[in-house]
Amino acid sequence: MDPPVRVTADIGVTLDGFGAGPRQCLERPFGDLDQAPLHAWMFDRADESPEEIAGILEAKAYVMGRNMFSPDRGPWDLSWRGWWGEEPPYRAPVFVLTHHPRPPLEMTGGTTFHFVTDGLDSALQQARAAAGDGTVAIAGGATTINAALAAGVIDELRLHVAPYSSGLAVGAVPHGGSRLFDDVPVLGLVPVSARSTPHVTHLTYRRP
Amino acid sequence: MDPPVRVTADIGVTLDGFGAGPRQCLERPFGDLDQAPLHAWMFDRADESPEEIAGILEAKAYVMGRNMFSPDRGPWDLSWRGWWGEEPPYRAPVFVLTHHPRPPLEMTGGTTFHFVTDGLDSALQQARAAAGDGTVAIAGGATTINAALAAGVIDELRLHVAPYSSGLAVGAVPHGGSRLFDDVPVLGLVPVSARSTPHVTHLTYRRP
Repeated sequence: MDPPVRVTADIGVTLDGFGAGPRQCLERPFGDLDQAPLHAWMFDRADESPEEIAGILEAKAYVMGRNMFSPDRGPWDLSWRGWWGEEPPYRAPVFVLTHHPRPPLEMTGGTTFHFVTDGLDSALQQARAAAGDGTVAIAGGATTINAALAAGVIDELRLHVAPYSSGLAVGAVPHGGSRLFDDVPVLGLVPVSARSTPHVTHLTYRRP
Repeated sequence: MDPPVRVTADIGVTLDGFGAGPRQCLERPFGDLDQAPLHAWMFDRADESPEEIAGILEAKAYVMGRNMFSPDRGPWDLSWRGWWGEEPPYRAPVFVLTHHPRPPLEMTGGTTFHFVTDGLDSALQQARAAAGDGTVAIAGGATTINAALAAGVIDELRLHVAPYSSGLAVGAVPHGGSRLFDDVPVLGLVPVSARSTPHVTHLTYRRP
């Protein structure tokens, strides 16, 4: 029998592996590169991928990097309440990795953002405790998922590959974006499934 | 009706997009990194991917980069007759990109290697003429396919993704390998199909 999947990770990436460009934000992850609608499959084309979207939202607790909550990296402007509107889709505790403490932020519909200043291990531990028997989902971005891959804590990795190459790795200059698998040592996974829609390719892998 | 597919490209890559490591050769594309059997799906596990392998071998002419024929980049040692044995699987003309002229090399079974010193456009033109109504296949490696993607000449791109991350993009040092989509400007493709076996994920894309 396969071991239970307790920690999942979902991320939208380009064909060349970028989860975000140099000017990171969720709405326009590649800044001016409107040619790369990385997240169209979740929004405009959500009808094509109902199961994959439901798979993200069935977790009982989430961990996310700060960029997934806020465009800034400095101390908090407490009037900023996240990218997700007053009723975020998570409907569960969300543990946001940050260097700056902030009190928990309770939103409408069951989502509460908790701000974790002592690292990924601590965030995962708190998320596992909050999830009980349910799944913990690492919600991105690439930097956070890379750290979790390197730490070996992801049971199931789900890539949602947009059919675009970002053009960020042109020339020898640093790309400035966030690329999946950067700084992850050699790692073998097990392919579980692959499915294409006209706007995205969903790939699921498990830990061996 | 879709336009006909006249130029295809196949390449095996790691999850992080590498077609070869720093010490490039076909048999051990990642040098000492035996954890990354990039081409197992074509050899030891060929029974899992008969249609994908047949798809590569149905072309009527091929274009390949020099590393796909030889481990060296200098002038030719004429005793070297390629990685592919005396009866290569291509059974068609193969146009090898090189900086060093060499007479054509006729092998057993229908394969003749032609050595092209005036670039990708010339090699493609010669391959199209040789293929007649048939398909021209760009057989790799990543550097050659990147040049063809940047030139917009590939009708169908078929990725064969081994379930390994290479660990080559750790730290800020140059990776030294060949990475698909490096130096390719922003590019949109159309997902056609996706299929997983236990050892590889086959992804097919077309030009819009």
